[in-house]
Amino acid sequence: MANEVTLLDFWPSPFGMRVRIALAEKGIQYEYKDEDLRNKSPLLLQMNPVHKKIPVLIHNGKPVCESLIAVQYIDEFWNNKSPLLPSDPYQRAQARFWADYADKKIYDAGRRSWTTKGEEQEAAKKDFIECLKLLEQQLGDKPYFGGDNLGYVDVAIVPFYSWFEAYEKFGNFNIEAECPKFIAWAKRCLQKESVAKSLPDQHKVYDFVLQMRKKLGVE
Amino acid sequence: MANEVTLLDFWPSPFGMRVRIALAEKGIQYEYKDEDLRNKSPLLLQMNPVHKKIPVLIHNGKPVCESLIAVQYIDEFWNNKSPLLPSDPYQRAQARFWADYADKKIYDAGRRSWTTKGEEQEAAKKDFIECLKLLEQQLGDKPYFGGDNLGYVDVAIVPFYSWFEAYEKFGNFNIEAECPKFIAWAKRCLQKESVAKSLPDQHKVYDFVLQMRKKLGVE
Repeated sequence: MANEVTLLDFWPSPFGMRVRIALAEKGIQYEYKDEDLRNKSPLLLQMNPVHKKIPVLIHNGKPVCESLIAVQYIDEFWNNKSPLLPSDPYQRAQARFWADYADKKIYDAGRRSWTTKGEEQEAAKKDFIECLKLLEQQLGDKPYFGGDNLGYVDVAIVPFYSWFEAYEKFGNFNIEAECPKFIAWAKRCLQKESVAKSLPDQHKVYDFVLQMRKKLGVE
Repeated sequence: MANEVTLLDFWPSPFGMRVRIALAEKGIQYEYKDEDLRNKSPLLLQMNPVHKKIPVLIHNGKPVCESLIAVQYIDEFWNNKSPLLPSDPYQRAQARFWADYADKKIYDAGRRSWTTKGEEQEAAKKDFIECLKLLEQQLGDKPYFGGDNLGYVDVAIVPFYSWFEAYEKFGNFNIEAECPKFIAWAKRCLQKESVAKSLPDQHKVYDFVLQMRKKLGVE
């Protein structure tokens, strides 16, 4: 059977970007469908009836939902090229831990940095920087979280970098001044074609967030 | 090297129970340490400095945190007996999806059923039953979510059953009347020694929740 792959996605979604990077790392051709989240397609509702969320990876007609689960699926199914998870069980568990940490902390703190004001916003920025500093510590002197090669944790985290201009401008803080090693790592990832072609321009995301703030009534 | 295994846990934790069941399924001897969560041990703080939460599986001095990550680690390290995750990548992705769903939905709805009142509590009970009905549908006519044998999804979900008496008494509803197939499945799981010895008695959990409600000021 031919491998028919479709990705239901929404271009500013860091979760969608994870799946795009994983597919690019494996060199898989696929059809990209950008969803209008205010008017979700019948295909999205059919393929992810539980959460009704993007991204959904559709492989030969069968859906895989939740971005980190889709990245693991891609890594396990196309296992002959560019391994994303390490082969050692303990290292795999560690990679899953940090991807899960990014999932729980970065997105939430980042979102709060542009949806809140005053004390709440200050707390969000503090949480965000603390999270990045902990990740910097975890990265250590390695070029990537995956070691010498881009891996699962890199794929899980680097998409958020495309939101950094928005976080900085609306949060009025300078991430690079606080976390230079993190920014150097993100720029290193962006030298990879798989990452560069999967992440939208920071300014385009900034414009998107500007519109979102207007819709949400954040001044 | 000998396999020295320690579990930092807290007896009513459904997350801890997952790790207990997985260890029992694999027939692994381990030292169980019950934590006082109001006065966490230096070992817990050292082994899980990021989240400071139980359960933590310590294998030859190295920690694995987050219950589903620990269960996957156990399955991958002790891979010669009682496989928990299926070998097919698509089936693995599906198993991860439903375990993640349980993680996101059952715990939250269950907790709201005994920490809230009035409309909020009614909404919690409705969410809880909807979640179980969806799981019943997913189970279908199989004896276990894992098929003919107890698997990853069963291990992820069955611990919540030990809280059902508390949910029912404080929420004033009858789960079995609404979801008889779910209850039949839970009782089937409890016939396994690995599950039976890992789950506390429902009435003991009820007493624990009664004390918690007093502490939280829920009437």
